Amino acid sequence: MTDGFYFEDMPVGRVLHSARAIRIERDRMIAFAEEFDPQPAHLSEEQAAASQFGQLCASGWFTGSVTMRLVAETLVIAKGGMGIGVDNLRWPRPVLPGDTLRVTIEVLAARPSRSQPSRGLVTMRTTTFNQHDQAVQELTSIVMMPLRSASQR
Amino acid sequence: MTDGFYFEDMPVGRVLHSARAIRIERDRMIAFAEEFDPQPAHLSEEQAAASQFGQLCASGWFTGSVTMRLVAETLVIAKGGMGIGVDNLRWPRPVLPGDTLRVTIEVLAARPSRSQPSRGLVTMRTTTFNQHDQAVQELTSIVMMPLRSASQR
Repeated sequence: MTDGFYFEDMPVGRVLHSARAIRIERDRMIAFAEEFDPQPAHLSEEQAAASQFGQLCASGWFTGSVTMRLVAETLVIAKGGMGIGVDNLRWPRPVLPGDTLRVTIEVLAARPSRSQPSRGLVTMRTTTFNQHDQAVQELTSIVMMPLRSASQR
Repeated sequence: MTDGFYFEDMPVGRVLHSARAIRIERDRMIAFAEEFDPQPAHLSEEQAAASQFGQLCASGWFTGSVTMRLVAETLVIAKGGMGIGVDNLRWPRPVLPGDTLRVTIEVLAARPSRSQPSRGLVTMRTTTFNQHDQAVQELTSIVMMPLRSASQR
């Protein structure tokens, strides 16, 4: 499987775990927010104290992006994955500076594509955990993956 | 409304448009992918040509983050918004280098929070368009917003 995962490698029920965790550095977290999500809870302790959150925490899009990094390292897809969409994206707990995040990926459904016979659609649930094993993000994604059988023809 | 939007300012059917568009710079798009989504379609023209996409295009998480920036400028929420979750996140067309993106936000539902009487939950559909007025991203988000009536007590 040197060129990565194919559709056939992701049967329903398969579970993958990221090999490492990523530490959330305060400065990187704030710089991301300044560029992409400049709301008070994500910019500084002072502004966050008066926000709905009450404490400095990561933008959900930063958590999602860090999660994508862990997923890309864990599930290396042959020819690259093609994300069709994401559902049920939730942030049940805030991500705080210094947290370390890891992910678990579970295959919920898999079927060949109707329109493109050389590809298949895999539905997976990705859960992001902090260092206390608390879920900080959950999502379900639909990803197009190439079929090994079609690639070898 | 100098301190931003409250729950009462987002009745069902209200539509907001971003005041500006953001141009997708090729180098920024690639740097984001190197940090968060290092898959071949997002890294270089050469790697993308052999990928499922066939052309260099943005990570969906980059598109989502740029969209968040436009939303944060367009809908400035008093005390900052608190994102509860996102559903139906789809990328119907690829985002290409040089594209300029704008957003439209439409309120689909709004109700006071049951657990927190000083806040309300607003469900909105955010659509991101390119310079050809083609949708490149759609999502439905649920955001907690403070009630003006509670803030003035």
